[in-house]
Amino acid sequence: MRIIPAGEFALNREVEYGSAEQNESTRRIIEAVRQEGDAALRRFAQQFDRVSVGELRVTDEEVQAAYAQVDAAFVAALRAAAVNIRAFHERQKRTSWMDLQADGSLLGQVIRPLKRVGLYVPGGKAAYPSSVLMNAIPAQVAGVPEIVMVTPPATNGQDGINPHILVAAAEAGVREIYRVGGAQAVAALAYGTESIPPVDKIVGPGNIYVALAKRSVFGVVDIDSIAGPSEIAVIADETADAAYAAADLLSQAEHDEMASAILITPSRKLAEQVQAEVERQLALLPRKDIAAQSIRDYGAILLVDSLDEAISVVNRLAPEHLELLVAEPFTYLPRIENAGAIFLGPYSSEPVGDYFAGPNHVLPTNGTARFSSPLSVDDFIKKSSVIHYSKEALLANGQQIMTLARNEGLEGHARAIQVRLEKEGNNHG
Amino acid sequence: MRIIPAGEFALNREVEYGSAEQNESTRRIIEAVRQEGDAALRRFAQQFDRVSVGELRVTDEEVQAAYAQVDAAFVAALRAAAVNIRAFHERQKRTSWMDLQADGSLLGQVIRPLKRVGLYVPGGKAAYPSSVLMNAIPAQVAGVPEIVMVTPPATNGQDGINPHILVAAAEAGVREIYRVGGAQAVAALAYGTESIPPVDKIVGPGNIYVALAKRSVFGVVDIDSIAGPSEIAVIADETADAAYAAADLLSQAEHDEMASAILITPSRKLAEQVQAEVERQLALLPRKDIAAQSIRDYGAILLVDSLDEAISVVNRLAPEHLELLVAEPFTYLPRIENAGAIFLGPYSSEPVGDYFAGPNHVLPTNGTARFSSPLSVDDFIKKSSVIHYSKEALLANGQQIMTLARNEGLEGHARAIQVRLEKEGNNHG
Repeated sequence: MRIIPAGEFALNREVEYGSAEQNESTRRIIEAVRQEGDAALRRFAQQFDRVSVGELRVTDEEVQAAYAQVDAAFVAALRAAAVNIRAFHERQKRTSWMDLQADGSLLGQVIRPLKRVGLYVPGGKAAYPSSVLMNAIPAQVAGVPEIVMVTPPATNGQDGINPHILVAAAEAGVREIYRVGGAQAVAALAYGTESIPPVDKIVGPGNIYVALAKRSVFGVVDIDSIAGPSEIAVIADETADAAYAAADLLSQAEHDEMASAILITPSRKLAEQVQAEVERQLALLPRKDIAAQSIRDYGAILLVDSLDEAISVVNRLAPEHLELLVAEPFTYLPRIENAGAIFLGPYSSEPVGDYFAGPNHVLPTNGTARFSSPLSVDDFIKKSSVIHYSKEALLANGQQIMTLARNEGLEGHARAIQVRLEKEGNNHG
Repeated sequence: MRIIPAGEFALNREVEYGSAEQNESTRRIIEAVRQEGDAALRRFAQQFDRVSVGELRVTDEEVQAAYAQVDAAFVAALRAAAVNIRAFHERQKRTSWMDLQADGSLLGQVIRPLKRVGLYVPGGKAAYPSSVLMNAIPAQVAGVPEIVMVTPPATNGQDGINPHILVAAAEAGVREIYRVGGAQAVAALAYGTESIPPVDKIVGPGNIYVALAKRSVFGVVDIDSIAGPSEIAVIADETADAAYAAADLLSQAEHDEMASAILITPSRKLAEQVQAEVERQLALLPRKDIAAQSIRDYGAILLVDSLDEAISVVNRLAPEHLELLVAEPFTYLPRIENAGAIFLGPYSSEPVGDYFAGPNHVLPTNGTARFSSPLSVDDFIKKSSVIHYSKEALLANGQQIMTLARNEGLEGHARAIQVRLEKEGNNHG
């Protein structure tokens, strides 16, 4: 892992939005699902997943059978995580409000859950039970009455859905599951088919075809942000344990070749220790090929003059994950402007947040923490404004409203007020 | 205005996302601004606005001069509206929180304003001072320290920015204004030029080129939703005043030819009265051509069996604006699932909300109220999760975190925990 002055570093990861062929293929899949519904879903399952799908909906018996295929320790850990995730997201709930004004008017904001949300869960190696919890629980806490999951009918060429995914869905309270994946699943959720009623929003990660399909149905339904390559920045001072810092950097690097792991430190000694530890630990990792490429292409140890400079570097990077492995981490918290999740102190290793502590692991990637936020209950609600104007309010303010409307050349707007002032003003003026 | 049974009605407005030429032209403009900066902005001003732009930034003197060109009544009305808008949006502010757990961990959510926001304001006839207030004030209430406005250098072929726009900006507290419009303004805000530092988010309405440019820079910066054609639904019973209902329908219809104005009523008598009133009032409107086309193509009076059915129709339509011109409007409020803004009772005419009462007039259009919300303070903040795990928490939960990580094949994640358990567990176990 190279050690360089912070000023020489720039993280440039051009994100692919798919080739022309991938875009065209996605477009055709969506169109086929709109036209042919379930029949298209079955055809694509045969074509892409090499599976003959009978019933699209997964039965309760299959979910029960999945429990028999997984470890008790896994279920216990999943349940403990679900309790924490639920507790954290409960804290994000908001309530409707209505304020009575002095003139008898009422103004307010009604908050409601979305009615029906679709959760995409990839198959194969990227089938992550933790993602099921992280996407489904905030929707459930928001009060979404219908949460539906879609996932490919086969895992790694084997017919059948990963049982850990089915157990995670059950633990998160998701009861409506369909065996359909890829762009065709996104199309089914957006437009509906004979078996799958359409949803209002689609969330969850997926491959390039899933991402392109989500982008394409955005507007028909809402979507979550499309995840880019992810990153961790670790700010460490001379008090940090180099082995901890190295392990945390590698836990990010093993995700994929485009992940970025960056240490920022004013201590050359620590920089060299972490460099050695990364090398040592990397050699022992099962996913060492992926992690090594990530470290080589997008990893770096940045030397800074001070922790203040480290904070500036982080605010420019706007990393998805930030660890503060420094003596007094809370001192720096108020100055962190841009970061998806902030981990403070030596025991707050990134995987604590990825799996367990409660905050969401769906975070803004690739610098978007400048303007985006972790997935939350807010992503599963909608607001309506409420305006109940009193007669007194209208009589008092009608002239000013007409002044503003006429200034904009919208006489029809002014007259909607005027017709009332003429009638009501005469009766009571 | 046609009277039809509700069951026969469907609102189909296919929204254009621009021709291939418009897309290509937008792409070229953005590329030119990225490459050439200010020089490209000046060239496009010459080419599209027929104006030689010297200094791009509007001076304080120009803003002061604008006050001399507008009516005192306009300024007074604008100030009164600004006070109301500010008060309503203050109510939306949220605070950071941090919860201490029993095991000494701290979990929380930090809420911060975006740092720099760009507000697009169209020139010409669509230059609406009310939109300046509605976009700038929520950002200001959120605490955004840098709010910058861009607007074309010429209005209707006349050199110079509409003074009402400059006054509205000043009243909303916007001090940084640039005379640049179109796709080139969006590109300048997203990528920055010599004169215009880049922003984190771009909001505000614009023509097709502005909309295409916003779509194209999304990801580099955040954008607000791209407004589609707008609509009003009015639910009225036999107690409603037909003249009020007709005036409110027309105030929406005069916006543009694709606007939709729909009355929903169980009373055939009221339906016929409103039909007659629309005809009578329409003939007197300055924008009668626009309003007539809107009413003909997308307007309707829908007959329903009951107010319950009216509510179902509205929930399917998910209108931008909904008026409840019924005897007991609050009775129905809890059952309105999808609507951007809800106006209750005879004195809550839509223009009350468009200009004055305080709630935002930037609302989800074209059925997106199913999953979107009015513009609010929430659109100008970002959240970061905070995780401070205690040693006790890590020792107690480390095994379960490793179980979940290993189940997903992410051994590097497990080892980031393990390295700590081995060190800390030994010292204190």
